[in-house]
Amino acid sequence: MHSFESDYTAGARVEILRRLNETNLEQLPGYGSDKYCESAKEKIRAACDCPGADIFFMVGGTQTNAVVIDSMLPSYGGVIAAQTGHISDHEAGAIEFTGHKVIALPVYDGKLRAEDVWMYMKDYWQDASHQHFVYPGMVYISYPTEFGTLYTKRELVELASVCRWYNIPLYIDGARLGYGLMSPKCDITLPELAQLCDVFYIGGTKVGALFGEAAVFTKHNMPRYFSTIAKQHGALLAKGRLLGLQFDTLFTDDLYFRISKHAINMAMQIRDAFDARGLQFYLHSPTNLQFLIMENKAVRALQQKIAFHTWGKVDEEHSVARFATSWSTTQEDVDALIDAIKTL
Amino acid sequence: MHSFESDYTAGARVEILRRLNETNLEQLPGYGSDKYCESAKEKIRAACDCPGADIFFMVGGTQTNAVVIDSMLPSYGGVIAAQTGHISDHEAGAIEFTGHKVIALPVYDGKLRAEDVWMYMKDYWQDASHQHFVYPGMVYISYPTEFGTLYTKRELVELASVCRWYNIPLYIDGARLGYGLMSPKCDITLPELAQLCDVFYIGGTKVGALFGEAAVFTKHNMPRYFSTIAKQHGALLAKGRLLGLQFDTLFTDDLYFRISKHAINMAMQIRDAFDARGLQFYLHSPTNLQFLIMENKAVRALQQKIAFHTWGKVDEEHSVARFATSWSTTQEDVDALIDAIKTL
Amino acid sequence: MHSFESDYTAGARVEILRRLNETNLEQLPGYGSDKYCESAKEKIRAACDCPGADIFFMVGGTQTNAVVIDSMLPSYGGVIAAQTGHISDHEAGAIEFTGHKVIALPVYDGKLRAEDVWMYMKDYWQDASHQHFVYPGMVYISYPTEFGTLYTKRELVELASVCRWYNIPLYIDGARLGYGLMSPKCDITLPELAQLCDVFYIGGTKVGALFGEAAVFTKHNMPRYFSTIAKQHGALLAKGRLLGLQFDTLFTDDLYFRISKHAINMAMQIRDAFDARGLQFYLHSPTNLQFLIMENKAVRALQQKIAFHTWGKVDEEHSVARFATSWSTTQEDVDALIDAIKTL
Amino acid sequence: MHSFESDYTAGARVEILRRLNETNLEQLPGYGSDKYCESAKEKIRAACDCPGADIFFMVGGTQTNAVVIDSMLPSYGGVIAAQTGHISDHEAGAIEFTGHKVIALPVYDGKLRAEDVWMYMKDYWQDASHQHFVYPGMVYISYPTEFGTLYTKRELVELASVCRWYNIPLYIDGARLGYGLMSPKCDITLPELAQLCDVFYIGGTKVGALFGEAAVFTKHNMPRYFSTIAKQHGALLAKGRLLGLQFDTLFTDDLYFRISKHAINMAMQIRDAFDARGLQFYLHSPTNLQFLIMENKAVRALQQKIAFHTWGKVDEEHSVARFATSWSTTQEDVDALIDAIKTL
Repeated sequence: MHSFESDYTAGARVEILRRLNETNLEQLPGYGSDKYCESAKEKIRAACDCPGADIFFMVGGTQTNAVVIDSMLPSYGGVIAAQTGHISDHEAGAIEFTGHKVIALPVYDGKLRAEDVWMYMKDYWQDASHQHFVYPGMVYISYPTEFGTLYTKRELVELASVCRWYNIPLYIDGARLGYGLMSPKCDITLPELAQLCDVFYIGGTKVGALFGEAAVFTKHNMPRYFSTIAKQHGALLAKGRLLGLQFDTLFTDDLYFRISKHAINMAMQIRDAFDARGLQFYLHSPTNLQFLIMENKAVRALQQKIAFHTWGKVDEEHSVARFATSWSTTQEDVDALIDAIKTL
Repeated sequence: MHSFESDYTAGARVEILRRLNETNLEQLPGYGSDKYCESAKEKIRAACDCPGADIFFMVGGTQTNAVVIDSMLPSYGGVIAAQTGHISDHEAGAIEFTGHKVIALPVYDGKLRAEDVWMYMKDYWQDASHQHFVYPGMVYISYPTEFGTLYTKRELVELASVCRWYNIPLYIDGARLGYGLMSPKCDITLPELAQLCDVFYIGGTKVGALFGEAAVFTKHNMPRYFSTIAKQHGALLAKGRLLGLQFDTLFTDDLYFRISKHAINMAMQIRDAFDARGLQFYLHSPTNLQFLIMENKAVRALQQKIAFHTWGKVDEEHSVARFATSWSTTQEDVDALIDAIKTL
Repeated sequence: MHSFESDYTAGARVEILRRLNETNLEQLPGYGSDKYCESAKEKIRAACDCPGADIFFMVGGTQTNAVVIDSMLPSYGGVIAAQTGHISDHEAGAIEFTGHKVIALPVYDGKLRAEDVWMYMKDYWQDASHQHFVYPGMVYISYPTEFGTLYTKRELVELASVCRWYNIPLYIDGARLGYGLMSPKCDITLPELAQLCDVFYIGGTKVGALFGEAAVFTKHNMPRYFSTIAKQHGALLAKGRLLGLQFDTLFTDDLYFRISKHAINMAMQIRDAFDARGLQFYLHSPTNLQFLIMENKAVRALQQKIAFHTWGKVDEEHSVARFATSWSTTQEDVDALIDAIKTL
Repeated sequence: MHSFESDYTAGARVEILRRLNETNLEQLPGYGSDKYCESAKEKIRAACDCPGADIFFMVGGTQTNAVVIDSMLPSYGGVIAAQTGHISDHEAGAIEFTGHKVIALPVYDGKLRAEDVWMYMKDYWQDASHQHFVYPGMVYISYPTEFGTLYTKRELVELASVCRWYNIPLYIDGARLGYGLMSPKCDITLPELAQLCDVFYIGGTKVGALFGEAAVFTKHNMPRYFSTIAKQHGALLAKGRLLGLQFDTLFTDDLYFRISKHAINMAMQIRDAFDARGLQFYLHSPTNLQFLIMENKAVRALQQKIAFHTWGKVDEEHSVARFATSWSTTQEDVDALIDAIKTL
């Protein structure tokens, strides 16, 4: 069946498998000290136009979020996030497990607003008894968000400004970073994004790799003893080469961006077909995740032909349906979905 | 250069890469709910003659140790281990990070003694003020040990008996399990080992896989909500298929055991050559890790030709040298080492 | 100056100091194993009509909340609380420090609604991917609430019913329990409250003691090794006698209830005076905390004569003012406040 | 019965109770911001000749150790202590609960040796793979030790030098500090001790107070947000006045030192009587704890008349008996013990 369930249901781009095969019997040192990790880091630094960046590869998104946030927050600090932020409610309490509160603020189209962060910080500092509260020590956002929406450059500058003002880091979860950067609505470049934040990660798991995320500390600001911290979290891969090789491949010949662009093309076709068919969008997403409001019976009918997930109820008779494209989505998949929609 | 540095310096057995290629574009559900994970679990249950075993795949050894131990200990419990146990001093405090003390007991030839565990448990229970101490709630051993040595069946039965007596689980770290089971000195079968302990893990990272460890709860005793616990630890892989497929391959046609046997054959040749050359063993290991006491200048000379690690000092002029074989060690590697030794 | 700042600004009832003096040189065993702790527990069990209750004394409220919640939740569980619950935002992340998420739900007059808890639990269980979320494993409420309001018996029964249905404990924070039970609006008895919940604590710090809270596990359900858990949290007092003696005194001749009643009488006089003066209440509290909406300049004028705290802004020109009575509030204090109000 | 069980079996010096009575109804701000805390801090600074010291009061010893160590260690760090150090095995894993390993080194007469610390630090730094180990980030000692012994000034200077060399803090647990400083064998002053270490605590619970310990950061080096950290640990007392008042009293007219001196006088009489009677000491303690090797039947006979604890076995027929004096020990207690010994 044609699947639009998520962006991690396939393996990896063929180039990655090819290079795993080619390098398989090379004897390489462990824990990320191999030549492929070095090469990948250099390519990422170049892509970010950020020669001073510290880069560390980890296996998955929740793991990366937990290690980055725990390592950059003081023990008494919490992290501000949107109520629908991935760390707020989709990571099984992995942040709290490390002892830190996720401070959930209201969300608009999947996004956190700078003015809400500003008010929260201001109230904290103006409260004479703030020693009794969790210190708001970091801001977390996702680009694109969990609803496929994008912050504008202006919104990012505002968030970054609040963080600068209060001297706390801005962290961008880029699990689907490529799908954001290749969106027609994206008004920011990767180097600009790297400059605006203090740390972000480039998602591999959902964008062409078997697994792997690259945490980029953009201001030579990776916490000291980071590999010890990662190991303590169970996040230091013995064969770090596997991560290095994958990111080296993704950042060769713009592969990461080309496959992201493909996923966006697929998504835009679907979006236009939904629109032409007069279906109701839950919100307008310019990236690889598309959300519709559908009657439950239409959902069930469509699921006979197409695999996709519902994403909560609207009312007793309607649900939100989510359609995800990815680097592995084919034109046949898209055509099949568009055909199936026509018969709804 | 021929490398005997460790057993995780190469990629994976070719069969694994082949199957990754074959299944790459299949659309599969995430987080270990795919058919390859199911198939791998069935094959492992069969290999362990343990139809009621609960099995969970994770990415690395430190991660597996932390998740298994944290999930099976009560919050007020600690885990007993040998002073040289991997969790005691080679995992960056990953167990303490989860809030549990590692209670280090003396070590003999890399092994923990049942009588020492017995005395510790007895003293704990006879102390009227034991409420002020950490509850010793689990026993951890490695098979083979960090020094390549093996517990005899009798020693394992004794350790298991102490655990039964005090009603605490026995956990066996099998990072190199295959290399233990295929040793000529091994007097226990995998089903027997599974029966004796409460939980163990089958190491893949060091035995033919790209990465991956299979935690086996042998008495249908996997803690509830285990996948939530794993996710909370950052240890739930999105594309669980990668773990399932690798273990499915390793447990097809006895591949795991065949490649382990090969590594042991390589190690025994080396051992015999060392012995014939009159070199001094640090201890006698019947598995893939061989330890010599060497003069520092001999170490430096040999390292011109062969890659290997030293493992601490003996005195100012002598060090312990460790030689590791693995599934990827070739006869040429071994011949080169044997040649090099002759010229020492 | 007459103070209505909080209910912990004075020392203790004179009976407590007298008994500390009388027993001072007795040689007594430590850690709560003395005769005064035993006697206090018996008296509390009698007052709760709960002969099977397990009771444990701790020093302060945040400490008690952290130890009780951490010990009763599974490692993968979070605790549901009102957004304004004390554990949600006034305890510096002490719950998250122990690894657990506080799941904040909307608040109405300081109270959590059973239907909101019900919906949250239902959604959790109906979500096919709930393994990726924090398990909602406990419900926390305060009686009275942080805004001085009281749950009705019916509301408590509803909350308890949801907890029973989903088999999770209901925990009541009774930092100011006496002030709730002695309110004219209270429609529940202490034995009824004890029956409805699984664990609650009787606050001493704010109700007549120098310090101390009595955690009451009402169904013989105190977690095993609780004193080890408490010690691990730094919450096991060496001279437990001090806690036992204070609660023994408070639960002799109904002292706890008599002094609570006094505080309520004082509060009701203030409330009536505010009402007579036509001042605007922020909300209607039937207990020892009274909240007014006041002009900022009126606040400043009144603070020349009376000590009290503001509790957030209403708008740029108005604030919420909080007036707290306690066991130590005198008729002169109240008269001074009433006089001062008249001149506003 | 005359008790030598421990130094926390009585209440408090009468001066403390008197001042609690005198100040009981004063309305004072909470959480340590009252005038008595300020006054006590000034007096402690003067006694330490350390005008720049930051001081924070907490309730008990385990709590103080956990908060101080957790706040001063980086997240990836462990604390070095003697195997018999209080944090190593008598605090229920309270340090590990905060995520940090206690690195236990060998003990001599209850003491940690500078050379052992030096070797451990050196080995850590010289190991090329030290990123995989816990960072040894602090040294913990007790003065006097858990066996009543004292470090000489020279030994303290050596330990402090190793810490300086490796730039890690030296922390002194002074649960019984007064009993150490007033020992005839003490060759160090309180100001000298304060200079040598980075942080220490002055024990109140065992030296005349109802409860309370004063953590002294001697180089204006109290971690930022310390009160938030303390609250997060459940260690911030609402009525901080109780701690301030007790330490203010203890540091008025040298009360702390006078009552400590009394306990030492009592202990020395006992020691001399044991010696005169030809009894065998387990080790030679110049402070308030005296340890004998006694036949089990002699222990049982003596326990008919005198309360004291045994402290482990020597062999099947002999145990170690511990006799503790304190500020509350009377001449009658001592005479009774000496009489009882004579009839052994």
